[in-house]
Amino acid sequence: MTESIRRIVLASRPSGAPTPSNFRLEEATMPDLPDGQVLLETIYLSLDPYMRGRMSDAKSYADPIPIGEVMVGATVSRIKQSRHRDWRQGDIVVAYSGWQTHAISDGSDLRRIDPAVAPISTGLGVLGMTGFTAYAGLRNIGRPKPGETVVVAAASGAVGSVVGQIARIQGARAVGIAGGADKCSFVRNELGFDAAIDHHDPDFARLLAEACPDGTDVYFENVGGAVWDAVRPLLNNFARIPLCGMISHYNDGAAGKSTVDRLPASMKVIQQRSITVRGFMNVEFIDQQPAFLEQAAGWIADGRLKYREDIVDGLENAPSAFIGLLEGKNFGKLIVKVSGEQYSRPMPAS
Amino acid sequence: MTESIRRIVLASRPSGAPTPSNFRLEEATMPDLPDGQVLLETIYLSLDPYMRGRMSDAKSYADPIPIGEVMVGATVSRIKQSRHRDWRQGDIVVAYSGWQTHAISDGSDLRRIDPAVAPISTGLGVLGMTGFTAYAGLRNIGRPKPGETVVVAAASGAVGSVVGQIARIQGARAVGIAGGADKCSFVRNELGFDAAIDHHDPDFARLLAEACPDGTDVYFENVGGAVWDAVRPLLNNFARIPLCGMISHYNDGAAGKSTVDRLPASMKVIQQRSITVRGFMNVEFIDQQPAFLEQAAGWIADGRLKYREDIVDGLENAPSAFIGLLEGKNFGKLIVKVSGEQYSRPMPAS
Repeated sequence: MTESIRRIVLASRPSGAPTPSNFRLEEATMPDLPDGQVLLETIYLSLDPYMRGRMSDAKSYADPIPIGEVMVGATVSRIKQSRHRDWRQGDIVVAYSGWQTHAISDGSDLRRIDPAVAPISTGLGVLGMTGFTAYAGLRNIGRPKPGETVVVAAASGAVGSVVGQIARIQGARAVGIAGGADKCSFVRNELGFDAAIDHHDPDFARLLAEACPDGTDVYFENVGGAVWDAVRPLLNNFARIPLCGMISHYNDGAAGKSTVDRLPASMKVIQQRSITVRGFMNVEFIDQQPAFLEQAAGWIADGRLKYREDIVDGLENAPSAFIGLLEGKNFGKLIVKVSGEQYSRPMPAS
Repeated sequence: MTESIRRIVLASRPSGAPTPSNFRLEEATMPDLPDGQVLLETIYLSLDPYMRGRMSDAKSYADPIPIGEVMVGATVSRIKQSRHRDWRQGDIVVAYSGWQTHAISDGSDLRRIDPAVAPISTGLGVLGMTGFTAYAGLRNIGRPKPGETVVVAAASGAVGSVVGQIARIQGARAVGIAGGADKCSFVRNELGFDAAIDHHDPDFARLLAEACPDGTDVYFENVGGAVWDAVRPLLNNFARIPLCGMISHYNDGAAGKSTVDRLPASMKVIQQRSITVRGFMNVEFIDQQPAFLEQAAGWIADGRLKYREDIVDGLENAPSAFIGLLEGKNFGKLIVKVSGEQYSRPMPAS
């Protein structure tokens, strides 16, 4: 039996918003498994905004994906075959297989997950990179005190939803910003934020100000653009801004969309109100991940940490789902279901 | 004998760069001295960029100066008459008399200075607010480690000159940016910075990059504009940016000068390189001022901390000197000599 693998490669670099033609679905022969390695079968693929950066060749913290190479991405995978003594066939792991059905790994980048704790797809979201990003930014930079106001952009998203819920667990007020009535209702009623404001509302800035009668002490920034403009006047003295991303600008060209230079006004507010802006990536706090996973599993178990996943079926649909992600079309952590094979909780050993 | 006082009031709010017509010189009668107060005679008046903000009525951390009121400012003053038990006639103090020859104070805002330590004008500069601003920003935010590179904008100025010298005292490399060959020569040869780059040079960005072969770990920001654009690509991972001011934008209207939005590119660098931007004002660290004054007096005494003052004679020349300050025309801490009366070191008591 010769099996083939399917994969999506970067066909060309996008100029502005990615289009389907920037991606190409390919078939390839299943690679041989060398000694000391494992063969992974992708069950779930995570789609995340940072991938847009990797499609460009601008100088960045991470190397660009070469043209013709597989798109990068975290996966939840099953070990289909093992020639590595630390890993067994059937183990469920978080891997970095990218946008493909199978991959080979030497095990160094794998993290075993326990299907008994939560559905394994959560290893890409609330119990994965996005959940940990929220936790690390809040714990190390935002540091909300009880009673303070935490404003969260993209509050129904994978990171923002966790930021607001942890802020509330820590005794702060959480004000979420999301796009559309459905997402706001979810943020307010399902996730339990104190308020949720629709950034599509023509009165967005005024409504946000009303939801923050005591100003804003922490603004978790992952959007930029008009949301930042609305938050800026509300920032209190000594506010902290964990800067996680600016998705509204990821499809900008070098010059940005605005013809107004918003930098001086932003820096003025930061200077005059003694505000801290701290860019970060979760990897710099990676030694806190075990503590996070333990705490978060407890919060999920007792119902204080909820999550929503937006699962798209089929690897071939990853490009359109990713394009939609950059436009805010997903609702919850965006995940592609790549394989339909058995991956549910295993039966107890007999 | 009826004496009069002279003062400069805000005649109108500037639109863009201030002009002489925004100021008005007035005479007024000497106020009576109430019990529990002191009458101050201004010897030196400090001119500082922050005053531009106080001339506007935009919402800010500090109230705008009302039209017709005296321009604010720190002074070195002599106590001409005291009806306050803690203060004696002849004491030399740092006060906040503003742009006028005399003022009344209840003593709560006065700091006595010792003419034996250094010329009293230094109470407005290297041993005053600007020196302390440099110290506080570096100690609390910049935190340079030995061998790291500290880039200082406006390096010949009152704050920047102290930043670079303290950075060197702490074992870091100091790279100064200044406008023109004279200022650069002063920064390099008199202040002892490791390098000084002229931002008027057409090759400014390249020269700055060459002066920072290991990148930039601390950027002390008090300029903004093109200087920030040149520093941005040089910033190392985990760089710290004490944000003290952005003088290049103080005369901007609300929209700024650029038609390119520089905010997204700036935030992208901050995010991807885990950079900290922290706005600050020296007052938040005011409990460190005694330690600063003691250390700085020692550094001045042993020649490690040098300073330059640009002293303009006559209160009536304060407006033109201030207008020049915003254009970078001063060379060293800008001070107006208001009174020619005796203020030198007193003779030892007999």
